[in-house]
Amino acid sequence: MTKLTLSSFVNNRKLLLEQKLTEYVRQLEVPTQLQEAMIYSLEAGGKRLRPMLLFATVEGFGQDFKESMPVACAIEMIHTYSLIHDDLPAMDNDDLRRGKPTNHKVFGEATAILAGDALLTYAFQVIATMSETFVDSSQKLRLIVELTKAAGPEGMVGGQAADMEGENKQLTLTELEYIHHHKTGDLLSYSIISGAILAKASDKDVENLRGFAKHLGLAFQIKDDILDIEGSEESLGKPVGSDMNNEKSTYPKLLGIEGAKNKLDDHIIKSKEYLYNVDIDKEKLELLVDYIMYRDR
Amino acid sequence: MTKLTLSSFVNNRKLLLEQKLTEYVRQLEVPTQLQEAMIYSLEAGGKRLRPMLLFATVEGFGQDFKESMPVACAIEMIHTYSLIHDDLPAMDNDDLRRGKPTNHKVFGEATAILAGDALLTYAFQVIATMSETFVDSSQKLRLIVELTKAAGPEGMVGGQAADMEGENKQLTLTELEYIHHHKTGDLLSYSIISGAILAKASDKDVENLRGFAKHLGLAFQIKDDILDIEGSEESLGKPVGSDMNNEKSTYPKLLGIEGAKNKLDDHIIKSKEYLYNVDIDKEKLELLVDYIMYRDR
Repeated sequence: MTKLTLSSFVNNRKLLLEQKLTEYVRQLEVPTQLQEAMIYSLEAGGKRLRPMLLFATVEGFGQDFKESMPVACAIEMIHTYSLIHDDLPAMDNDDLRRGKPTNHKVFGEATAILAGDALLTYAFQVIATMSETFVDSSQKLRLIVELTKAAGPEGMVGGQAADMEGENKQLTLTELEYIHHHKTGDLLSYSIISGAILAKASDKDVENLRGFAKHLGLAFQIKDDILDIEGSEESLGKPVGSDMNNEKSTYPKLLGIEGAKNKLDDHIIKSKEYLYNVDIDKEKLELLVDYIMYRDR
Repeated sequence: MTKLTLSSFVNNRKLLLEQKLTEYVRQLEVPTQLQEAMIYSLEAGGKRLRPMLLFATVEGFGQDFKESMPVACAIEMIHTYSLIHDDLPAMDNDDLRRGKPTNHKVFGEATAILAGDALLTYAFQVIATMSETFVDSSQKLRLIVELTKAAGPEGMVGGQAADMEGENKQLTLTELEYIHHHKTGDLLSYSIISGAILAKASDKDVENLRGFAKHLGLAFQIKDDILDIEGSEESLGKPVGSDMNNEKSTYPKLLGIEGAKNKLDDHIIKSKEYLYNVDIDKEKLELLVDYIMYRDR
């Protein structure tokens, strides 16, 4: 059997995901501007790492990834809403995202705020109205509860709030980990935990996957910080050193570049230790772990 | 038996609701600023009309209103988030709400945006994690599905987007009804429908309550427009004629003040016709209908 490559895993799944994302929003009967603003940011691309983690998890448990498509789309809607709101002038005030003008630059701030609100709410609708062919009511409720925790005040929104409060001051490593754990880690973890819920994994497997996901999320963020220093502007699509130039706290700033790389290694090793204990075909998840560790953007 | 009055119905229920609302947010482990911003707007008061409609509905079906408290709090969280986002400079740019500085005036725009996002997400968490003593999984899922529709792109957010798009142009009556039906009507309707779901009302009763709620919601909005012209600044807590002075489309502008009053009567009569067909004790709901029709603020 030939070895699976990352691109052969990602390509076809990414295409189907992106078709379905647009389709979900196209089928809504809503004011045109709002609809276009929602679609604009959903189509702005990106790595689609979260849906890929979900697909790799359900497939690891032997399920068809297509059965988890509504959850994958909901996750990407939540991720996209958070980017739209984070880019607003009152927040990070970014004009560009992945080389394209940000949502409020194209549609205005009012529509950008509403497009974010709409995507957040619609994400829950997409999960709550999933066909019950592959999931039952109690699975859907668990998916919703976990998503509110990952995306809400004790999750992503709390992480973003802590990030804003911590701007322009030197954070401790504990404070920095709190921010990343919640701001990016919780939704990344949800991508894996939701796969386990869909696959009706045992409680023990769910808890080990939680440990796996937590360390993977921190590794992802540390790699981001390292790339901001060592990456090339061409592959990143944004100026190198942009974190260094503003007063943002990063792992390399707190630990030095070598310290940050050691921390990255630690988290990758710990994540693999947790994964090792899960009764799952690990091939696809390991591909994504390697991608997170070795990516150049 | 002495006749029930509006104040004796509202007072004790409103107090308990407000205690519970604060308690829900106090128990969160989140950054201080975010928590204070959430609580500030939740405590800013208001009529709490939506929770009262929910309580009147479940009590009409013979249930204790306390059993529906989590849903009442979730509705008030969604209503509050929509006010915080609507008041933002990019939207209506309001400095005052019910005589108090708006959220972004106190906490800054970034925190106001995040407090709104947090309340929206937390509302779903509150429903999804309700104790299953009084509701089962399938009722909770129905409550969530209906709430996503009422609050999301095809509901409240869509209404607000249409309202923004329609600013500074003369709308037709159909366009104006679309805006109000969604911007305020859908969440008002949900307050009644969610009560019917909690009480396990029959499909026929749910559909009649939907008709009741739809006309009641439009009546509520028309009354608002009439009060903007005929109310006193003192009781309204905002300048009289503020809708007339900006280019906002209103019922009195489209239909004349007498035409608007006739329209209000029509919707109240139609709402009562629907209610008449529901197998429910109507006393408390009728108190609220009268309040909506005869209120002076």
